[in-house]
Amino acid sequence: MLRFLDSGESHGKELTAIIDGFPSNVPIDINNINKEIEYRMMGYGRGLRMGIEKDFVEIKSGVRGGKTLGSPITLSIHNLDYKNFSDVMDMEKEYDNKIIVPRPGHADLNGALKYNFNDIRNVIERASARETAIRTAVGAFCMELLKIFDVKIVNRTISIGNIFDNDEVNMQDDRVLKKIMSSNVFCYDNEKEKDMINAIDDAKQNGDTLGGCCQISAFNIPVGLGSYSFYDRRADYRIGGALMSVQGVKSIEFGEGISASKSKGSMMDDEISIKNGIYNRLTNNAGGIEGGITNGMPIVAKVYMKPIPTIKKEIQTVDLYGNKVKDRYERSDTCAVPALGVICKNVMSYELCRLFLEKFSGDCLEDIKVSYDNYLRRVKRN
Amino acid sequence: MLRFLDSGESHGKELTAIIDGFPSNVPIDINNINKEIEYRMMGYGRGLRMGIEKDFVEIKSGVRGGKTLGSPITLSIHNLDYKNFSDVMDMEKEYDNKIIVPRPGHADLNGALKYNFNDIRNVIERASARETAIRTAVGAFCMELLKIFDVKIVNRTISIGNIFDNDEVNMQDDRVLKKIMSSNVFCYDNEKEKDMINAIDDAKQNGDTLGGCCQISAFNIPVGLGSYSFYDRRADYRIGGALMSVQGVKSIEFGEGISASKSKGSMMDDEISIKNGIYNRLTNNAGGIEGGITNGMPIVAKVYMKPIPTIKKEIQTVDLYGNKVKDRYERSDTCAVPALGVICKNVMSYELCRLFLEKFSGDCLEDIKVSYDNYLRRVKRN
Amino acid sequence: MLRFLDSGESHGKELTAIIDGFPSNVPIDINNINKEIEYRMMGYGRGLRMGIEKDFVEIKSGVRGGKTLGSPITLSIHNLDYKNFSDVMDMEKEYDNKIIVPRPGHADLNGALKYNFNDIRNVIERASARETAIRTAVGAFCMELLKIFDVKIVNRTISIGNIFDNDEVNMQDDRVLKKIMSSNVFCYDNEKEKDMINAIDDAKQNGDTLGGCCQISAFNIPVGLGSYSFYDRRADYRIGGALMSVQGVKSIEFGEGISASKSKGSMMDDEISIKNGIYNRLTNNAGGIEGGITNGMPIVAKVYMKPIPTIKKEIQTVDLYGNKVKDRYERSDTCAVPALGVICKNVMSYELCRLFLEKFSGDCLEDIKVSYDNYLRRVKRN
Amino acid sequence: MLRFLDSGESHGKELTAIIDGFPSNVPIDINNINKEIEYRMMGYGRGLRMGIEKDFVEIKSGVRGGKTLGSPITLSIHNLDYKNFSDVMDMEKEYDNKIIVPRPGHADLNGALKYNFNDIRNVIERASARETAIRTAVGAFCMELLKIFDVKIVNRTISIGNIFDNDEVNMQDDRVLKKIMSSNVFCYDNEKEKDMINAIDDAKQNGDTLGGCCQISAFNIPVGLGSYSFYDRRADYRIGGALMSVQGVKSIEFGEGISASKSKGSMMDDEISIKNGIYNRLTNNAGGIEGGITNGMPIVAKVYMKPIPTIKKEIQTVDLYGNKVKDRYERSDTCAVPALGVICKNVMSYELCRLFLEKFSGDCLEDIKVSYDNYLRRVKRN
Repeated sequence: MLRFLDSGESHGKELTAIIDGFPSNVPIDINNINKEIEYRMMGYGRGLRMGIEKDFVEIKSGVRGGKTLGSPITLSIHNLDYKNFSDVMDMEKEYDNKIIVPRPGHADLNGALKYNFNDIRNVIERASARETAIRTAVGAFCMELLKIFDVKIVNRTISIGNIFDNDEVNMQDDRVLKKIMSSNVFCYDNEKEKDMINAIDDAKQNGDTLGGCCQISAFNIPVGLGSYSFYDRRADYRIGGALMSVQGVKSIEFGEGISASKSKGSMMDDEISIKNGIYNRLTNNAGGIEGGITNGMPIVAKVYMKPIPTIKKEIQTVDLYGNKVKDRYERSDTCAVPALGVICKNVMSYELCRLFLEKFSGDCLEDIKVSYDNYLRRVKRN
Repeated sequence: MLRFLDSGESHGKELTAIIDGFPSNVPIDINNINKEIEYRMMGYGRGLRMGIEKDFVEIKSGVRGGKTLGSPITLSIHNLDYKNFSDVMDMEKEYDNKIIVPRPGHADLNGALKYNFNDIRNVIERASARETAIRTAVGAFCMELLKIFDVKIVNRTISIGNIFDNDEVNMQDDRVLKKIMSSNVFCYDNEKEKDMINAIDDAKQNGDTLGGCCQISAFNIPVGLGSYSFYDRRADYRIGGALMSVQGVKSIEFGEGISASKSKGSMMDDEISIKNGIYNRLTNNAGGIEGGITNGMPIVAKVYMKPIPTIKKEIQTVDLYGNKVKDRYERSDTCAVPALGVICKNVMSYELCRLFLEKFSGDCLEDIKVSYDNYLRRVKRN
Repeated sequence: MLRFLDSGESHGKELTAIIDGFPSNVPIDINNINKEIEYRMMGYGRGLRMGIEKDFVEIKSGVRGGKTLGSPITLSIHNLDYKNFSDVMDMEKEYDNKIIVPRPGHADLNGALKYNFNDIRNVIERASARETAIRTAVGAFCMELLKIFDVKIVNRTISIGNIFDNDEVNMQDDRVLKKIMSSNVFCYDNEKEKDMINAIDDAKQNGDTLGGCCQISAFNIPVGLGSYSFYDRRADYRIGGALMSVQGVKSIEFGEGISASKSKGSMMDDEISIKNGIYNRLTNNAGGIEGGITNGMPIVAKVYMKPIPTIKKEIQTVDLYGNKVKDRYERSDTCAVPALGVICKNVMSYELCRLFLEKFSGDCLEDIKVSYDNYLRRVKRN
Repeated sequence: MLRFLDSGESHGKELTAIIDGFPSNVPIDINNINKEIEYRMMGYGRGLRMGIEKDFVEIKSGVRGGKTLGSPITLSIHNLDYKNFSDVMDMEKEYDNKIIVPRPGHADLNGALKYNFNDIRNVIERASARETAIRTAVGAFCMELLKIFDVKIVNRTISIGNIFDNDEVNMQDDRVLKKIMSSNVFCYDNEKEKDMINAIDDAKQNGDTLGGCCQISAFNIPVGLGSYSFYDRRADYRIGGALMSVQGVKSIEFGEGISASKSKGSMMDDEISIKNGIYNRLTNNAGGIEGGITNGMPIVAKVYMKPIPTIKKEIQTVDLYGNKVKDRYERSDTCAVPALGVICKNVMSYELCRLFLEKFSGDCLEDIKVSYDNYLRRVKRN
């Protein structure tokens, strides 16, 4: 049973995660994890902080001699910015300069009321999307296992504001993928990339922000992950819920979910075929999940992000003492959609790894391989 | 900590649910639960079976003298159809007439491969949306607690196929709500109702099916449910994942999630105001959740359902032995969107009740009331 | 991931359990489950009720054609006594004749205060050891899987009051086991059986009660169940906690735990040997668990039960309104130690099954067998 | 819902724990936590390492300005010994000098087989009781909350080997407690302290080891923690299981559990009385838990530890390749019973805090106080 917890404030000492239930003998290359961390920091539209932080992951337990131990894994990312905030974030001494004006669109007010704070900093330090750095690391760590079984998960920016780059491309093709990950906004089309960058520049100039949409696709997922037995075991519950939990995401779609709702059964069914004894589908409108279970086709999810709510325009708010005031402005990104794709890819990686290990349990990589190979043989037809 | 499990095959003896962690001394009126069960069975577009089953809930434990005991609650719904299936579903004797042709769009093939079945009936009996009857009962049971705290959750059909009824209406208004629940498809506008019924008739005549979209709104949810502390405690993880897990749902949206992704921060922020000492928002684009925490505004979610995949047109499939064949046809509904709204309302009810009890824990109703009242006082400003 | 919930009041309609995560294609013989239910009801020293109830289990879901479906399993045991209590236990109408005097040694007072009841019946109906009937059924169901892998779990009464029957016997020997299960108190020695029965008769005559100790031994448990990775995954946490949770149990011991605490390392170490390529131990002081993991030796646990606290002697108590009064007397057993052994055997069966399925996960029996066989081969030396 | 994970190898970089679900605004004095860490390292009978490590806890997240944030708390303890093991424990480079001889009584063999290791160091680094340092820190952190509600948990050595110091003393008395915690073995009686030290010296001289027994008592626990609703919510399941999971513990006893099993109901019942409107018991044979629920009396548990299995005498074992060999010797303590008491006190602290927060949930200390005070008022009689 794979599980994890993560912790850490945005300007605290470090972000930490502990992963339990990861099998032994899985080779780990920390460079692969840091590569994802790096992708997350790239992407046009990020604000000042990304220049300050040069995130990298440290593995503090659970790996020895290049392989996992079956023991809990500790990952940490140091906040380089902490040195500038050591008095603000001091563990013992209270900091005088309190934030009392909540920003709309954030957890600021809800969090301060819930937890009974007179300083909104206590909220924003944890509610911040900075937490996604360590969540990305967790997913990237899980990918070290999944890739042994040929799983590949990729992300692609579909839209930023009203600029769309949604022509179908073969994301399983390495050249396509390379082109996407070389783009400043992780989209495919060069012209659309320019348009997106221009849109971001425009928004920035106006003190405004932009949302958008990313597609996450996972390839070589075996048929049979998840279960219809109970709702919390469904693959769509797990993956859908996890993607929805990412900061800024307000909508999730599997396959052609929204189009399908306007269409007819006769146009959306994915007919079943077979090739070399392996069942497949002629189309993938379902996005790889039928009846809560993976069907062997690529898992395709779209995540829709609202624009970052922190804008420079003055908007109305009410402080913690009930006084109507104008919003304060906090340093912020203009557009985080490119980073979102990277984060969601890794969030999906964790959830798929969890589903994978529920099906192909085993304490060590060698046992998992036996289970996996046996299963693939079993579901093959001649 | 509220939790439940449910069980039961579609044509088995009964559907059962056990709910643990429900507080004591909550008055229960079983008629309210049966009312939701009844709503679920209504709705234009359902197939033959709804004439056979007249579902009602039996409470088998956890309630005495009209009130909950704090002990686990057992709910059951008998399958009246079981009497016609007693040999098919016999516990001991194997049934000869096996189903070997999987229908696209269902769990049929994935389930049979995963669980190693030579009879697809073993899959469809549990993967069936019949399970939503007991899930509806669980949510309706939870509503008996929530309504004491003035919570109201309502559903509305927004679209069936390409017929939309999405003008804003005040769903908190009892007359509006009554009008919706009197509609044959649970939409608001009478003309649109006719169009939807016509669309369903058309589809049925062509052996086709239709999907659609429902809106679920929850009112009087206190600020502060859920937490940004860790992703599985976020209100959007819980509610979003649970809605996504409902059979046929392929997309979820909170508030104006999809529009927001195409828009600008300056247009989507919900400005904060205060009235009678209670914080609120001037708009509700966020759908009642900011930073993973409820903000006191109505929770508004849209669920998008694909058309039921079972159509009369012959489509390609492959049987369990690897032979390409034409799809078999199984009795089915033409459109389940009206039922979906009822189900999702109750699914949200369970998740909100769980979040509510995490915040206002207490073993009995009286203690919960003290916690709740104290909290409302605490977050009020003068 | 195996899990279950159970429900039901002592004099309510039925006891119910839902088990989720049980694999498919496991043959189920309900007679085996009922045999355990029957053993639980036997045993010298039980009171009146055992004459009323003739418990048997009904499987309401999750099994078809003699095999499990991978879907949730519903077990129920009807309370035959319910017909005599239908007005007392009425779901809707409040019952006037309230119990307000708490018995020492039971949950009576704690439960009434916790849940804010003015009728202690609301407590005793669920806190009653009657719940162990359904828990026994759950464990017996799990045994249907375990026995395929040659697991055998047996129970034996070690002491009742101050009568001890603790000479070592080979409980793996079928004749020994048969002798034990034929005893009226499930002990081995015929003379001791008589002494125990006499002690029970004596106690009964004096309106008194007796406790005692049972041994539970599980054979053919593969090395490697449980993990030292985190405390809630340790085999001793799982099994020890579960045994301790059984009504009346106040102490648990693995192997020679208590003697070992008074002894020296040099006398308690179980030296490691090997036979036919399979590691074993020359002694089993550790009771089959080292470092939180099973070591392949029999798991041996002792459970110590306090005497049933309901005695006929007047003892001091205080009613729900704070008035000092004499204890009321409720129908009760004189000694439940024989039943305890049966219950604990089945409680251990569930926990071992859960540990087993965490290690040899697989959706169907066939996949589990492959995992299991592969593992046994892997840990064998030549 | 309180939960935590911990991680870290015995000679790795650090031990880490993440605690989630801890409320906000709880004042934290890290010195109190370090005091417990220090107690754990004291105690006569520890081996060489305790001279090397001078453990102290660092809080890396979740606390600011002296108070908790409601966000996850990160605790870490650096392994000072890591500097001497950096090549042995290198994350990337495999270490040549492998351990292939398993010690009896440890996880060595079971772990190596389970996780498929050719180096037993991979097992012992995590299975080591060094992990209890961070578990102690977690419990001590929780005590910062509990003590606000006057909870006090104390430990006392009852026996080491066959030297017993089990006369009843009032552990709630500060002078008694001070005397115990000043003892080199944490027992009460000065003469017995000398005897225990002599016994340890004797054992050490003979290359042998000793086990023993500790008592843990928790005072001012409100009535009503835990529930009989389902077995995993019982106070005895939670506390009993957690204590059993501590390295070296093989038996657990609540109150007079073992004596009670040999006694009669009439002698073990704790009669109920009332004083100043507060229910209590005239005796405490049940050890503070009846029916799985705390009854307001002190919780009294005894934990029995086997002797540390690592002895200097040559004993038989079998290496990882199946060859019969003599045991290797690893640096070890002679007697860890004094440390055990400190560890178990803090393990109980965590479990009680979890039970406490399930009952008196609330996001911040202020809300919890309201719940708590209301409840105490409610269960008081006039």
